[in-house]
Amino acid sequence: MISVHLDSGVVDVRDVARPRRPEGFALIRLLIGGICNTDLELQRGYYGFSGTPGHEFVGEVVEADSAHLIGKRVVGEINLACGKCVWCARGLGRHCPQRTVLGIVQHPGAFSEFLTLPERNLHVVPEGIPLEAAVFVEPLAAACEILDQVPALRGSKVAVLGDGKLGLLIAQVLQANGCKVLQFGKHAEKLRISAARGVTTEVIGATLPVSSFPYVVDATGSPEGLRSAVKMVEPRGTVILKSTVHGEVPIDTAPVIVNEITLVGSRCGRFEPALDLLQRRAVDVASLVSERMPLTQATAAFAAAARSGILKVLLYAQEAG
Amino acid sequence: MISVHLDSGVVDVRDVARPRRPEGFALIRLLIGGICNTDLELQRGYYGFSGTPGHEFVGEVVEADSAHLIGKRVVGEINLACGKCVWCARGLGRHCPQRTVLGIVQHPGAFSEFLTLPERNLHVVPEGIPLEAAVFVEPLAAACEILDQVPALRGSKVAVLGDGKLGLLIAQVLQANGCKVLQFGKHAEKLRISAARGVTTEVIGATLPVSSFPYVVDATGSPEGLRSAVKMVEPRGTVILKSTVHGEVPIDTAPVIVNEITLVGSRCGRFEPALDLLQRRAVDVASLVSERMPLTQATAAFAAAARSGILKVLLYAQEAG
Repeated sequence: MISVHLDSGVVDVRDVARPRRPEGFALIRLLIGGICNTDLELQRGYYGFSGTPGHEFVGEVVEADSAHLIGKRVVGEINLACGKCVWCARGLGRHCPQRTVLGIVQHPGAFSEFLTLPERNLHVVPEGIPLEAAVFVEPLAAACEILDQVPALRGSKVAVLGDGKLGLLIAQVLQANGCKVLQFGKHAEKLRISAARGVTTEVIGATLPVSSFPYVVDATGSPEGLRSAVKMVEPRGTVILKSTVHGEVPIDTAPVIVNEITLVGSRCGRFEPALDLLQRRAVDVASLVSERMPLTQATAAFAAAARSGILKVLLYAQEAG
Repeated sequence: MISVHLDSGVVDVRDVARPRRPEGFALIRLLIGGICNTDLELQRGYYGFSGTPGHEFVGEVVEADSAHLIGKRVVGEINLACGKCVWCARGLGRHCPQRTVLGIVQHPGAFSEFLTLPERNLHVVPEGIPLEAAVFVEPLAAACEILDQVPALRGSKVAVLGDGKLGLLIAQVLQANGCKVLQFGKHAEKLRISAARGVTTEVIGATLPVSSFPYVVDATGSPEGLRSAVKMVEPRGTVILKSTVHGEVPIDTAPVIVNEITLVGSRCGRFEPALDLLQRRAVDVASLVSERMPLTQATAAFAAAARSGILKVLLYAQEAG
């Protein structure tokens, strides 16, 4: 089968053996994969990754222990948890210390004609959700995670910094959950996607508002984002860290302490709220698709995804029709 | 009157005019002041401070609008809030954007024979609390603030990093509030003060436990403390920042995000819980007193307070008897 391989920053496409499905796992035929900023970070050397990347996907189950799954279109939670530890017992397998992670930590990723995942990780995609929307469930769940971690945010004024893929999803998710969102970004054309969903948007100027928001989400992907967020948040306010920044970020802890600011790291989320938002058409993900390319052109697709101005690049297992 | 003056890192003692009491303010005769690490940071240039330092004190009211205060022994909250803004309305005058701060921001400090504070900032010291304990109310309130900000911490396992003055108060306050405290420090002789109050203590060795605590308080005063705290806290755990570190601290935000850690900046607290702890003799502050010196020897007292191994240096307005 065709499979993307990433090693030492080089992406190539190889013909490899189809994976074998362990007991409790499903064998899934890839339909569409999505390239995430984390994939680009892996390419840059984050986690010392080598192997098949890809953790955003929608696919079709071809083999499984549970007969009802066969032929179903599915998305899959990316953390493969042990199922036995205290974290798993608390429903937080996403933090299981024994976990592997699809396309990130010691489990081959989704950018392959076939992939495997535990059946318990799978969610059948409801009829009303198009495939090109379903492929956004994983990053949309990461956006929804903010509301699970900081429930008091619902209905509040929130600043979202960054207008990349994740920033656009976060702004829409929060707006759809009753927040009054003000999104700051560098690209008027990207901000229009959020604006169409009721988000107030602002192209970043020379100065940003100071001590003005009870909640600020940093989704800039840059070290400057966190520093700006700390300045923009009110005393006793909360900054949510959604940027994967490679390396150390120098922050001045004095204003964090003096203003008693809370910083909350936030990563993957539950899939249920994301599927619900897509089914209710409460968010627009279609406008985030910049390119559709076949899996065989993954090398070019990764290069495209890294270009400024590009949002989501989708990888089709077969030529896009 | 005798007053301590700090400018460009130099501490000297001057004879200056007694301050005039504005309406709503009390004129207070200093009995004892305490030198805090923040005072030493001011001396090192933090906040570009110039003037009379000192914010830990116990004094006697000599003039006030409210007759019942005259002659009373008082401690005083250090933030002078406007009393009119939304922060003041929320009972959070400690975050009033118009505030001045005793001995820190544009209000002459307590290391002076006489000082002024708004009457509403004052707390009469109950009979049972000795003067040398009352002078610890302000830092003790800062330790209690942790429980106001993170109430879920009560009864939980907590690591406290650092065995300086604030670390010793924090460990005792948390232990007295039902936490199971494990305090890590460099000085066996200081840790004995907490150990006598039931805190489990450990002299820091080559390695620290990893991902082992739901809550970690950093009171080390060093940039390394925050990095250690992030390593020691469990996924989804909370790190409380109690160290005033001057300048930028490089932190790796990746583990904060991947492990969804919460960082909470924490500063001043309400005085009521601190007075209550002292009245119930639930914490030992007497063992923290390293030196007693007259106000006239403030220069030497600041030098003593900066020496390694020294805990609290008290400044007596009159020669200690």
